[in-house]
Amino acid sequence: MTPFDQEQGCMETAKLLESWDDILVVCHANPDGDAIGSMTALVRGLRALGKRADWYCADPAPRKMAFLFEGLEPLGFEPAHVMTVDVADRKLLGDAWEKFGGKIELAIDHHGVHRPFVENRWVDPQSAATAEMIWLLLKELGVSLDTAMLGCLYTGIATDTGCFRYRNVTPRTLRIAAELLEAGARVGDINHLIFETKNLAAVRAEVMELETLEIFCGGKCSMVQIPRSIIEKTGADEGDMDGSVGRAAAEIEGVLIFVSLKEKEDGSIKASLRATPPANAAVIAQRFGGGGHVGAAGCPLDGMDMAEARLKMMEACEQYLKEIGSI
Amino acid sequence: MTPFDQEQGCMETAKLLESWDDILVVCHANPDGDAIGSMTALVRGLRALGKRADWYCADPAPRKMAFLFEGLEPLGFEPAHVMTVDVADRKLLGDAWEKFGGKIELAIDHHGVHRPFVENRWVDPQSAATAEMIWLLLKELGVSLDTAMLGCLYTGIATDTGCFRYRNVTPRTLRIAAELLEAGARVGDINHLIFETKNLAAVRAEVMELETLEIFCGGKCSMVQIPRSIIEKTGADEGDMDGSVGRAAAEIEGVLIFVSLKEKEDGSIKASLRATPPANAAVIAQRFGGGGHVGAAGCPLDGMDMAEARLKMMEACEQYLKEIGSI
Repeated sequence: MTPFDQEQGCMETAKLLESWDDILVVCHANPDGDAIGSMTALVRGLRALGKRADWYCADPAPRKMAFLFEGLEPLGFEPAHVMTVDVADRKLLGDAWEKFGGKIELAIDHHGVHRPFVENRWVDPQSAATAEMIWLLLKELGVSLDTAMLGCLYTGIATDTGCFRYRNVTPRTLRIAAELLEAGARVGDINHLIFETKNLAAVRAEVMELETLEIFCGGKCSMVQIPRSIIEKTGADEGDMDGSVGRAAAEIEGVLIFVSLKEKEDGSIKASLRATPPANAAVIAQRFGGGGHVGAAGCPLDGMDMAEARLKMMEACEQYLKEIGSI
Repeated sequence: MTPFDQEQGCMETAKLLESWDDILVVCHANPDGDAIGSMTALVRGLRALGKRADWYCADPAPRKMAFLFEGLEPLGFEPAHVMTVDVADRKLLGDAWEKFGGKIELAIDHHGVHRPFVENRWVDPQSAATAEMIWLLLKELGVSLDTAMLGCLYTGIATDTGCFRYRNVTPRTLRIAAELLEAGARVGDINHLIFETKNLAAVRAEVMELETLEIFCGGKCSMVQIPRSIIEKTGADEGDMDGSVGRAAAEIEGVLIFVSLKEKEDGSIKASLRATPPANAAVIAQRFGGGGHVGAAGCPLDGMDMAEARLKMMEACEQYLKEIGSI
């Protein structure tokens, strides 16, 4: 079988899964809501069809997403078939590549930058979330969605769209959300937990992050710093720092490039960039050996301390904005 | 005509509007996105039907919402009919009550706490936003929605639901949003402008607000202070302080009551409260002569300075939480 055609993808994937049993579903390392939501929804759906299905992720799920695993105890069988959901590149599998790489037979993904690592794949970049695809797939498989599945699917869609705020939202995204809500998804509780429940130490850390805010290039660039001292002083778990406060620095009127400088445990500095058109975050990141997308990119700043990283990034932003004629 | 029956409301309202011309549409003072969006969408729709229609609001619209008025120059005629949208109580009309109170013939509103101030009214608390009702109404009137109308309606729905995050969202809300997007509403641009564009001074003010964060009652209460000095130091326009940063204080895990103490220009203090079940914000506010809803309420703290207001509110919160057995 060749990579699935978009229209056929869902049907072909369903046929394949119908013919399988003892299935392991794997998502990407450092999992987000769509990875976990898609994976757990699919495992629940396969189990509802009477199949043995288990899940694997190289890293633990964010604490807030623990509810997605409720009642989903691992069965611990030897998988006959391994597949991935929401994995754009095999590099993102973490240790799952060493463990199961050779056995992966199917990939379901929505990333436009998907780099094929398996022959059978259904990749639909029109889907705002892989969970949209899993919703279609479970319908195709004839699974009757229970409250837990509805919650997993909703979490995937809501998290990958910033709760329907990002530009990836399509009419279909909203209609699927409507159907999930209508079918009984606990949307209010999930939104409250995911988007409106913050960890005190993380909020304090993000406030300290925002206190470092600098604006330069005539208001076209903003920068924040997250030295280890912020983590140490507040005791924040980095996994709890969801950026809901710190993100404001990237969203200041007129800002084209936002840089966040983070000191890692080993003292090295990593820059995360966000850009608004006409700026391109990936171009700047590439100059430091990093990469990413137009809107968001990242790069290591090895061998620099925070002070040097700050200056280098300021220079690079100014240089770049001059090149594109924005200053 | 008596208050419109829910099912009949839209049809009856449409009939009434079809029989009218020279219509003034009024929304509430201190307008939000739903007030402005509903008002401007309806005026545009009435004009598209060949009627003369104008709008009035006692206060200027938030700066971010200026785009909703594009191409909607006032015609300046003497209105034959006056109606309101999104007005839950005549007290919320500001000076529009003195100006037009006696002439108001129709009210369209979605607030569950609507206090009737006019005989003809279509009140639907099942609608997450008045803009949902205006969408139904424009369809009933046979208006072909242009991009501007779509944007006004989307803005109303998105702002009143916290971009589809709040518990008032229904399947219909999401389906209407899907139709607006499909019809060409510039959803991405509007979300970016409304939810992801922040004023620098306002962000700085909200960071200073969060720096005052106190947690008490064993983590069940949080409090922030906004003294005038914050406004003065940052130069923030209070209208630009949309709470996107400061709100984190209300959303800390385990917090049942959140109190924000704001010093007004005359030096008096006003408390805003938010509560999570089982706590009830209105009960506490009422003890200080204020009021509101279970989830959000407010009260004046006249004659107190910030230090006294802080202590009194802390006492009141502790007392209340003891009463309901939460501490």
